[in-house]
Amino acid sequence: MDILFIGDIVGRPGRKAVKGVLNDLKSNYKIDFVIANGENAAGGTGLTKKVAIELFNMGIDCLTMGNHVWDKKEIFDFINEEHRIVRPGNYPEGTPGCGSTILLKNNKKIGIINVSGRVFMDTLDCPFKTVERELINIKKHTNIIIVDFHAEATSEKVAMAWFLDGKVTAVLGTHTHVQTADERILPRDTAYITDVGMTGPYNSVLGIKADLVLKKFITQLPVSFKLAAGDKIFNGVVLNVDDKTGKAREIKRINLLIKSDEEKE
Amino acid sequence: MDILFIGDIVGRPGRKAVKGVLNDLKSNYKIDFVIANGENAAGGTGLTKKVAIELFNMGIDCLTMGNHVWDKKEIFDFINEEHRIVRPGNYPEGTPGCGSTILLKNNKKIGIINVSGRVFMDTLDCPFKTVERELINIKKHTNIIIVDFHAEATSEKVAMAWFLDGKVTAVLGTHTHVQTADERILPRDTAYITDVGMTGPYNSVLGIKADLVLKKFITQLPVSFKLAAGDKIFNGVVLNVDDKTGKAREIKRINLLIKSDEEKE
Amino acid sequence: MDILFIGDIVGRPGRKAVKGVLNDLKSNYKIDFVIANGENAAGGTGLTKKVAIELFNMGIDCLTMGNHVWDKKEIFDFINEEHRIVRPGNYPEGTPGCGSTILLKNNKKIGIINVSGRVFMDTLDCPFKTVERELINIKKHTNIIIVDFHAEATSEKVAMAWFLDGKVTAVLGTHTHVQTADERILPRDTAYITDVGMTGPYNSVLGIKADLVLKKFITQLPVSFKLAAGDKIFNGVVLNVDDKTGKAREIKRINLLIKSDEEKE
Amino acid sequence: MDILFIGDIVGRPGRKAVKGVLNDLKSNYKIDFVIANGENAAGGTGLTKKVAIELFNMGIDCLTMGNHVWDKKEIFDFINEEHRIVRPGNYPEGTPGCGSTILLKNNKKIGIINVSGRVFMDTLDCPFKTVERELINIKKHTNIIIVDFHAEATSEKVAMAWFLDGKVTAVLGTHTHVQTADERILPRDTAYITDVGMTGPYNSVLGIKADLVLKKFITQLPVSFKLAAGDKIFNGVVLNVDDKTGKAREIKRINLLIKSDEEKE
Ligand SMILES: [Fe+2]
Ligand SMILES: [Fe+2]
Ligand SMILES: [Fe+2]
Ligand SMILES: [Fe+2]
Ligand SMILES: [Fe+2]
Ligand SMILES: [Fe+2]
Ligand SMILES: [Fe+2]
Ligand SMILES: [Fe+2]
Repeated sequence: MDILFIGDIVGRPGRKAVKGVLNDLKSNYKIDFVIANGENAAGGTGLTKKVAIELFNMGIDCLTMGNHVWDKKEIFDFINEEHRIVRPGNYPEGTPGCGSTILLKNNKKIGIINVSGRVFMDTLDCPFKTVERELINIKKHTNIIIVDFHAEATSEKVAMAWFLDGKVTAVLGTHTHVQTADERILPRDTAYITDVGMTGPYNSVLGIKADLVLKKFITQLPVSFKLAAGDKIFNGVVLNVDDKTGKAREIKRINLLIKSDEEKE
Repeated sequence: MDILFIGDIVGRPGRKAVKGVLNDLKSNYKIDFVIANGENAAGGTGLTKKVAIELFNMGIDCLTMGNHVWDKKEIFDFINEEHRIVRPGNYPEGTPGCGSTILLKNNKKIGIINVSGRVFMDTLDCPFKTVERELINIKKHTNIIIVDFHAEATSEKVAMAWFLDGKVTAVLGTHTHVQTADERILPRDTAYITDVGMTGPYNSVLGIKADLVLKKFITQLPVSFKLAAGDKIFNGVVLNVDDKTGKAREIKRINLLIKSDEEKE
Repeated sequence: MDILFIGDIVGRPGRKAVKGVLNDLKSNYKIDFVIANGENAAGGTGLTKKVAIELFNMGIDCLTMGNHVWDKKEIFDFINEEHRIVRPGNYPEGTPGCGSTILLKNNKKIGIINVSGRVFMDTLDCPFKTVERELINIKKHTNIIIVDFHAEATSEKVAMAWFLDGKVTAVLGTHTHVQTADERILPRDTAYITDVGMTGPYNSVLGIKADLVLKKFITQLPVSFKLAAGDKIFNGVVLNVDDKTGKAREIKRINLLIKSDEEKE
Repeated sequence: MDILFIGDIVGRPGRKAVKGVLNDLKSNYKIDFVIANGENAAGGTGLTKKVAIELFNMGIDCLTMGNHVWDKKEIFDFINEEHRIVRPGNYPEGTPGCGSTILLKNNKKIGIINVSGRVFMDTLDCPFKTVERELINIKKHTNIIIVDFHAEATSEKVAMAWFLDGKVTAVLGTHTHVQTADERILPRDTAYITDVGMTGPYNSVLGIKADLVLKKFITQLPVSFKLAAGDKIFNGVVLNVDDKTGKAREIKRINLLIKSDEEKE
């Protein structure tokens, strides 16, 4: 099967970008299943029910999250009922939501795991042990397993790739909002990329207006961030997967620049 | 003119990779000037005089550094005498070495600035102000200016790109050892990439043997790191520059996999 | 002269504690001048004009700040006009407010410097160089100089003490909200304490309700913090200073538990 | 019973300080049991077998550790055989050594737990859950339980105090090397202090020569640290404990300045 994973969707511009290209991408690449990182989908931070439904309606099958998972408080109300949303599994036991899910599409089961890094990030449980634990259950049901490793440090992300090589279909990094060019199939047939990138405003700093971020860095004063407007970028990867073994045959980067139609905006 | 910038050269494997491909690259791309990040060139951390000379002899014109600049103590003995080596300019005043240099090649002057990020890194002076200050002097001599921004956080790196757009030829990120796929020419003709990547062991974690890094992450115990062997990766970017204005016309990623000839090793 | 320095005043409970004991303290210790850290004085984070005036009216002569200085946006409106408030001097040039001030009391000039640490804190300019620069000006006017070093790491704080020994009257640490027991007169007559402590709710975590902070640590979920109620603690130090030389003769810790009159609250 | 807890013993000067005062302290305070933090006991970082035996021979009954536990590699050879040494219990499962121990003295059982903070420190398991888990076992054997919480942030340390109030005899902070003045008996009879302090060179930065630490902070260059000489400080706390219930009746700070006999040194 062919799986599309979309990098962190940033606010309305990101959702617009998805809407603009998803159907074409799905038919061009014969995509069977679509996963997207949704931690920034609502206004740039967090996820609301309305936005989640909007994204599911566009044709996304599963949303993964990250450190921004709790930014919109209402997520506590629906994360437990929505098995198509996974949040980093290394939050402490008892945290609302799940670190993994198994979804059925075209009679195939796909396991999705979301886990967060700890280097330069929140002090969560060990991501390596978390994934190991999640795998025990998922492996009983399917070999097609996609891991969204939401992390900052390249060392931790690449280490996770080697840790999971041969155990999962793909280890896909998110969080830095910049797509990396190191996609590869590891020796034991696990697809890997350090960061899928982001889907949102192109002329920006990770989605935010550049002058505001610059002001923050240069003055060290508090600045309220706003999403940038104009052209958009769509970042993702397409995985070609052997349905039986769950092994990845190919990983292809998607990196689309979507020109803004100024008149319409 | 055409400038090649090579990502962090990691130890002997990295130097071997440079030696193996540099001449061909130079003739294929008609390279006029070669810059490389050398902070990991000696044994994976730091730089010795011997290694610097080895790299200059291979055809590298300038070496930039980063947080590993002081790892080999002998650098204090030669950094002040070697104007082809630049270290992050935001170390405090009085630090040995320079944050920028101007080199002459084929009758053209090229300014090179090295500066370090502060997010998730050492507490140095403001990188934005540092570059601004370095530019005042360099601008008097040349418009061809390459900035190696050695930093961890994508936000700080992309912000620097916007800060310097129109003021320098290129802002090239280093330090993460993973090449990013976001190379572009910004609106005011500055070339940018978040990270050029690394030149060294391919089957590794940033150059280090994967099992050692994994042991470190999983056990949290001290582990002595060793460079990985086998296949190598060569990461760089080629810039096409308007000599008069210093504006970048094109930035192209170089991402070569160099198969190891096991017999010879 | 005798100077009282009051540790971070936390919200209304902290202000109430000050009001309850300040007059007695002033007469008991024959206090000539009162400085207080006010970074948490308004609602636990930041400072408003109203709260500042309230504190000045209680008999505080000067307010120092810290990392919470900008938490209440309105401070930008009055910090430039109020020479009795100092904020960390190692914010970048051009930042509203000042890093030092010289105040006149009973015909004596007292210099007050506020500076922030960088270890585990925001990426500001070098605190050591900042103080050195501030001293050049202040030294022209007075030898009585009190430095509030608002910092996290004990290493950075103790290092500052040795750096300034013989150059200022006192180096007083703030920020951790826990009073340390290492007050001393250094060999060259500078008074020092790693942290003066806090003035606010006693049965709390740094002023905040303990159960909320615990929830945050244990669940890693977002929690809105509220100040604790009940008994209060008043932390400060009294300095006895040689007016002419500015040398410190004595540093005494003040650590008062103020029982809450439950009926009145 | 009466328990003496000695703050981080730093190198030979720290051991000398212990040797100089321990016997007197034991008889003056009728001490039944002595615990000391030994993470810096050998040369300032880590612990060797020789140094451990030296300290046990002086009359210390139990050594706790911290982030420096693995600095001397040989500890891996003896930590598993020495039940009088505990290291932070929140290292991953399978780590050599133990996070708690139960020792018998004068027919009484004393449980000792060592746990590390995570804020501004290594990414270990949750310290709160770790202590909870250790307690399950220890509580079966004794009510006299001393917790050494080796942590940086005051918020995390005070939070642990409230978390364990009523469950253990004492929560004693270590790691910052500066004694705090907030010792108290919490409402449910648990003794608490944010940091016991250190035992080692007095005129120093946490034990290290001040000029070296200053050089590090000001130049940001690598500096090799050496222990300071001269006067020493001995920091500790004495706990008076109800043997049956394990409740703390009193916590008293010990803060001794030991003048150096220059001739002898
Ligand atoms: Fe994101
Ligand atoms: Fe994120
Ligand atoms: Fe590097
Ligand atoms: Fe680096
Ligand atoms: Fe504070
Ligand atoms: Fe603070
Ligand atoms: Fe220590
Ligand atoms: Fe420590």
